[in-house]
Amino acid sequence: MRILVALGGNALLKRGEPMTSEVQRANVRTAAQALAPVAEHHELVLSHGNGPQVGLLALQAAAYEDVEAYPLDVLGAQTEGMIGYLIEQELGNLLPADVPFATLLTMIEVGADDPAFADPTKFVGPVYEDAEAEALAAEKGWSFKRDGERLRRVVPSPAPKRIFEIRPIRWLLDRGVVVICAGGGGIPTTFVPGEERTLAGIEAVIDKDLASELLAREVGADLFVMATDVDGVYEGWGTPEQWRLDRITPDELRDRTFASGSMGPKVDAAIRFVEATGRRAAIGSLDDIEQIVEGCAGTSVVPATQEEDGDG
Amino acid sequence: MRILVALGGNALLKRGEPMTSEVQRANVRTAAQALAPVAEHHELVLSHGNGPQVGLLALQAAAYEDVEAYPLDVLGAQTEGMIGYLIEQELGNLLPADVPFATLLTMIEVGADDPAFADPTKFVGPVYEDAEAEALAAEKGWSFKRDGERLRRVVPSPAPKRIFEIRPIRWLLDRGVVVICAGGGGIPTTFVPGEERTLAGIEAVIDKDLASELLAREVGADLFVMATDVDGVYEGWGTPEQWRLDRITPDELRDRTFASGSMGPKVDAAIRFVEATGRRAAIGSLDDIEQIVEGCAGTSVVPATQEEDGDG
Repeated sequence: MRILVALGGNALLKRGEPMTSEVQRANVRTAAQALAPVAEHHELVLSHGNGPQVGLLALQAAAYEDVEAYPLDVLGAQTEGMIGYLIEQELGNLLPADVPFATLLTMIEVGADDPAFADPTKFVGPVYEDAEAEALAAEKGWSFKRDGERLRRVVPSPAPKRIFEIRPIRWLLDRGVVVICAGGGGIPTTFVPGEERTLAGIEAVIDKDLASELLAREVGADLFVMATDVDGVYEGWGTPEQWRLDRITPDELRDRTFASGSMGPKVDAAIRFVEATGRRAAIGSLDDIEQIVEGCAGTSVVPATQEEDGDG
Repeated sequence: MRILVALGGNALLKRGEPMTSEVQRANVRTAAQALAPVAEHHELVLSHGNGPQVGLLALQAAAYEDVEAYPLDVLGAQTEGMIGYLIEQELGNLLPADVPFATLLTMIEVGADDPAFADPTKFVGPVYEDAEAEALAAEKGWSFKRDGERLRRVVPSPAPKRIFEIRPIRWLLDRGVVVICAGGGGIPTTFVPGEERTLAGIEAVIDKDLASELLAREVGADLFVMATDVDGVYEGWGTPEQWRLDRITPDELRDRTFASGSMGPKVDAAIRFVEATGRRAAIGSLDDIEQIVEGCAGTSVVPATQEEDGDG
């Protein structure tokens, strides 16, 4: 099978951990131990988040005043290099020496007319006191929203339309390469209005589950897994009767409502993938990845025709 | 032809320029204008430096005290992402839309027993006053050497032995992809002593011309160009009789001595490539890259058999 695994942020950093290189490497090593058996038996493409890593780069850049901080697209490119490096090295250490790896910088097109640009929603970087935020808004044109008691920068989260490096990614997968790409949802780029051939990075963040879904579809993945720190999608989450959904169709899933937070985009991405491809998507814990691949852990979203009689 | 162009640091930043994203992007755009005709007519693989970019990341990290600075291998991975992104986007904007691009994270093996580890020589990061340098030496075990009046960190510069991602790089070139890789000389890695299968990044910098030479050889490049800000290798550089060497064999070149600085490693890398492959290497200005490719600008280093009768 060709499998895309989208790694949740916890594969790199657990809540409350210090953001040192050592901590992130140790977490990646644990993730690699879970992923290694999958990589040995399947064609594997990996994507990952980058929120805290971009946040740290922004804090470091703000602390050093001699050079103006790089924009978000450039910070995103830096994190794709860094996180891809850790994953490639740690997973490579657990696989036979002849398994080839490639970490690819990934740019994803978003529409310059995407409605998301009118309503920035994605938090990036640190929190600020009101006065600091006002100064930054005036100086840099940033938008802010309240995150708890303090203000935090928000940027638009437009929909991914096209992965520019998709052909190299496919060609490498066809050769059996473990490919790491579309980190942080890919680097959002648009064609500059009025110059139809000029691509430019923009200050935005593409939802990483939606970017991964597009990638899964475009590489013809047989299975699209979103690996996180909970073992599936729950109904009645947080109530005494909560139960995990084992196997469900897009229509049934759409009828349920889920607490906002990280699960909503994952459910949306799973529905989209299954409806577009007729193949299985799954949401579950990275610790269970082998069982998720086999269809016996996590929440599997399957086309209606497969609901009763096992996985196609 | 398959051509490797190693971009000098000035393709990203000229001496004295502020290190903003905008300045670097503008320089990359100029470099892309020179490279575009080459990319249209040949198979092109690009490598690049990363010294000032790693230096800035180190300064920013030092200015933000809450999280310990990442080690050099991780900073190198960040710069491969960032610089690759700028090159891929700006060069992509000048080429037909169907030309595929890929920027690959590149790890290069160095020997744990490389003699360079006994004698760190490569400057990295900012300069320090003596007291600061002593404190850092005690705290982090860093080595320092004098750079002008102040002290600067030095790390070993071991020889590149193997490019781990070489197969994906070759496969992509075979498909006509413009490949950007081995940035900053690649990320230096060694097998952990006693654990023959465990690769780890190390605090070192591989000379980027030597890394590019290894890459040129390993991808079977027909031509290896080191593009810099001077128009070739000069004899008597800085004297009234200085003249540019047009076309020269490795043996003749070895007999001459060159001012130290950036030209020495380029000359060494050119000699090594020509002797190993029997193909042409060239050193010259990025502005002249089309003419260098045609053999009518820059300094060409050619095998003895080709010296008289034109380029093979």
